[in-house]
Amino acid sequence: MDNLTEKKISSTHIYEGIILDLYCDDVLLPNGNTSKREYIKHVGAACVVPVDNDGNVIIEKQFRYPFSAVLTEIPAGKLDSKKEPHLEAALRELKEETGYSAENMVYLGEYYPTCAYSDEVIHMYLATGLTQGAQKLDDDEFVGVEKVPLETLVDEIMKGNIKDGKTQTAILKAYLYLKNN
Amino acid sequence: MDNLTEKKISSTHIYEGIILDLYCDDVLLPNGNTSKREYIKHVGAACVVPVDNDGNVIIEKQFRYPFSAVLTEIPAGKLDSKKEPHLEAALRELKEETGYSAENMVYLGEYYPTCAYSDEVIHMYLATGLTQGAQKLDDDEFVGVEKVPLETLVDEIMKGNIKDGKTQTAILKAYLYLKNN
Repeated sequence: MDNLTEKKISSTHIYEGIILDLYCDDVLLPNGNTSKREYIKHVGAACVVPVDNDGNVIIEKQFRYPFSAVLTEIPAGKLDSKKEPHLEAALRELKEETGYSAENMVYLGEYYPTCAYSDEVIHMYLATGLTQGAQKLDDDEFVGVEKVPLETLVDEIMKGNIKDGKTQTAILKAYLYLKNN
Repeated sequence: MDNLTEKKISSTHIYEGIILDLYCDDVLLPNGNTSKREYIKHVGAACVVPVDNDGNVIIEKQFRYPFSAVLTEIPAGKLDSKKEPHLEAALRELKEETGYSAENMVYLGEYYPTCAYSDEVIHMYLATGLTQGAQKLDDDEFVGVEKVPLETLVDEIMKGNIKDGKTQTAILKAYLYLKNN
């Protein structure tokens, strides 16, 4: 696929924020012209579909500022660093945000939320063998926790009522995985 | 869910780029503390799962600079403006990037790629009744087009071999829709 490859000429660090780190690079296109590529560098993240023994998923209600709305999401969070194993991050975020621990974790693969302008990778997991404990949120984190049957969530996704991308992908993958295993 | 809502105190426009428009707002948290929220304003986008009469999906191979890799994706593109109907954008991007026109478009709902730090909404469609024509790409766009059976793509998604988020979500939704309709 060498006729599709773009090559970096130079890179400018535009902004270093709390969660966003923005770059603009000059690149050489496959046809010899030049262009600019703006993108975000992100540490990476993990998300979890926690399914209990009754087939319920532990989901979250969280206010998302860019949409000024409370969204339905699965537990998720950033890696502590590029080096943190994503399984550890998944178990930690599950525990902190919902209070649940999991005995079994099935890896559901990588999810690139916005490959056009961010290098973020979210690692997806299915968690089973759940044990309930206490929520332990960060200082500026406010999360409501609910239990919803997996089949109901799949219906809601098909009806367009669950909008978050990682939540749609990971729940549909968990559903198909559990049907076939 | 009023106990989850965050309120804007002030907003700073950090960067106006070609595809990215970055803001950092001071916000009032549900517990009365303040915090900062960094986010991108995006015009919105549309994506399409084009399925031909033999059950093949028209997919694309595109170099994605943030990953320095060629990814497998469905046809997609930005709206021309906030006001452009997303159905029009979906049909246009399908035509420009793959050359195909579609007789039937089924709406598969909204997809929020990164609700934590972007207000981008991608509208997902299933396209059938396809007619082939000529590709008509933008000047800095290089896209390879292939036909792959829908069932093969679902297998590849389940194996973790297709990473792009909108592609995973829209193909799994199209697959479940076609199974049930």
